[in-house]
Amino acid sequence: MTSILSYLGQQKEVIAGFLRQFTESRRTAFADVNRWGPDLLDRLYEFASRGKMIRGALVILAESLFSSGKPAGARQGASTDAVRVAAALELVQSFLLIHDDIMDQDFLRRGRPSLFAQYSGSLSTVAPDTEAAEARRFGESMAICAGDVAMLLAFELLAELDRQDERGTEIISLAAREISWVGVAQMSDVYHSATRFPASEEEILSVYRYKTGRYTFSLPLNLGAILGGAGPSDRARLLDLGEQLGLLFQIKDDDLGIWGSEAQTGKPVGSDIAEGKQTLHRLYLIAAVPESERERTSTLFGSGSSEAAAEVRDLLTAYGVEERVRTSMQECAERARQIISSLEGVGQSGQALLLELVEYNLERFA
Amino acid sequence: MTSILSYLGQQKEVIAGFLRQFTESRRTAFADVNRWGPDLLDRLYEFASRGKMIRGALVILAESLFSSGKPAGARQGASTDAVRVAAALELVQSFLLIHDDIMDQDFLRRGRPSLFAQYSGSLSTVAPDTEAAEARRFGESMAICAGDVAMLLAFELLAELDRQDERGTEIISLAAREISWVGVAQMSDVYHSATRFPASEEEILSVYRYKTGRYTFSLPLNLGAILGGAGPSDRARLLDLGEQLGLLFQIKDDDLGIWGSEAQTGKPVGSDIAEGKQTLHRLYLIAAVPESERERTSTLFGSGSSEAAAEVRDLLTAYGVEERVRTSMQECAERARQIISSLEGVGQSGQALLLELVEYNLERFA
Repeated sequence: MTSILSYLGQQKEVIAGFLRQFTESRRTAFADVNRWGPDLLDRLYEFASRGKMIRGALVILAESLFSSGKPAGARQGASTDAVRVAAALELVQSFLLIHDDIMDQDFLRRGRPSLFAQYSGSLSTVAPDTEAAEARRFGESMAICAGDVAMLLAFELLAELDRQDERGTEIISLAAREISWVGVAQMSDVYHSATRFPASEEEILSVYRYKTGRYTFSLPLNLGAILGGAGPSDRARLLDLGEQLGLLFQIKDDDLGIWGSEAQTGKPVGSDIAEGKQTLHRLYLIAAVPESERERTSTLFGSGSSEAAAEVRDLLTAYGVEERVRTSMQECAERARQIISSLEGVGQSGQALLLELVEYNLERFA
Repeated sequence: MTSILSYLGQQKEVIAGFLRQFTESRRTAFADVNRWGPDLLDRLYEFASRGKMIRGALVILAESLFSSGKPAGARQGASTDAVRVAAALELVQSFLLIHDDIMDQDFLRRGRPSLFAQYSGSLSTVAPDTEAAEARRFGESMAICAGDVAMLLAFELLAELDRQDERGTEIISLAAREISWVGVAQMSDVYHSATRFPASEEEILSVYRYKTGRYTFSLPLNLGAILGGAGPSDRARLLDLGEQLGLLFQIKDDDLGIWGSEAQTGKPVGSDIAEGKQTLHRLYLIAAVPESERERTSTLFGSGSSEAAAEVRDLLTAYGVEERVRTSMQECAERARQIISSLEGVGQSGQALLLELVEYNLERFA
């Protein structure tokens, strides 16, 4: 069970090394623009290298499975193009997180200041008289630029594949299209946090599909598959597989946010209930309770109280929502397993590795 | 003199028509994500189509000059690839303006609400109890996403050229690189507006070079030149030409902001002085006055008073700054003319058209 995780973890070092080289190679040109340029490259490298780089690692995995039937590392290691595309996806991930942190007003990202918070803080040093609101606005503006530049660097990388055939533009086209849909899905998230209007099942599932499934799983697997020479049927299967994995991952995440132990998830038990996160659990429960209970049940979410969270957990069990959601997860997992076993181009050891990804997502505790 | 302007103006309709088709072709996929998707396509088309589309038109001009020695329209019209790249650049321009309007808190863009203001306003309709600050934040978050999506749509377009050879990735690589430098240059602008620290000559010129020269002139001309099959020496010349045209354009802009008539520019006389815009005029004047006058002279900028603006104009003339800056413009124009006459691949009528661009920038009143 740990072999897929250790495999993905090993790729991080390779991708981070490539990103370091790439940002270094842009230092002179960025320094020619102004002093913010090289400083930004340092911040982007530091920001990206603190991630787990799962998306990038999935590119390398898929490329090596399709090109050799074995995971990279079992032979000479990943191809430069696979690492390049992996690094580009990690820059894309930085771009999305940098902009998300502005939208969500998250001052911390993985225990360190988010990028807008870094820039806000730096202004206080050089211009200590700046009002807090103005420093905040400065930080946000700088981070909007920083995210934009991260995305542009990603496309610059994608345009520099060694392999200059039609696969190059296919990769850019696919990446641009899928990432544009992440942006559209994010708008729905922004709307529901701003209005606190309840999201419908369709709206919740769409965010899971586009922000997690297709972006985190389908896109990296497909990009690797294109590089590895996968055929059109396998590529279509990987797209479906990514959606199922994303759904499974996201529902499991919500489940852990309700039932997970603080020691393992690092978040207080039931914190998603206390914060009023819009989940399938919440939606199904409010629909399941008698009409007369509906309004009171709604107020249990987002109340910030741990008693309310405990009551929600009891209700989820009593009304069969706990069971219903876990059945959905099993169904996603089963569909994912079937897709994996139908893949033609990855070999048996490749299928086994991908199956581990399903089991890990199903069983994880954190 | 009007022929270059009418030529560029004619291309707008072609580019806008292409953009309309392109956004329509993405409607179904965007509607599959959520209801924000098709709505965003409409807003992006509307936003882009209100621009002059000069950058896009320059792509078409350069492509046709290099491929046939004549401007498009004099033969069958522009190639689809030229129009596609032109439309992509106009989406890039929308992306930059959408994000800039957030940073500058500009509620209006060409007489209509900017994108963040549109989204803020739409929230008041569905959730009238929303506080103003929250509606503002909602609008900004939505517009960050909208700008991101506009940029991604631009790269999707660039990845779909009919001509699938190495020029395709060269175009994407060049565009990503140059636009990333616009983002870095913008950071310097953000810093100087936030701190009001005076920008050095080098900092002012760098913003003019990267935000205006290379982005507005060098990049479109070069993209068109790549499509039109220009050789490396002409491409290098176009890069220099763009920088000179940008410098000329921007210094002229500052000059009009000081001396231009309200009837022609649409801005109150001296409004750039009243707003404290950081220009070469300001920098040179503060350096030219005696040390004892320096502090008082600085306070004349950004005071908002028209008397102060009138005094600044008198000082600019008295200390020879008016003359010095106009000489710089003449020098830029002369360098631009020399570069144009050295271009090998555009023919004489092409050179004549490009020369008009220089004269127009030198002599315009608005």
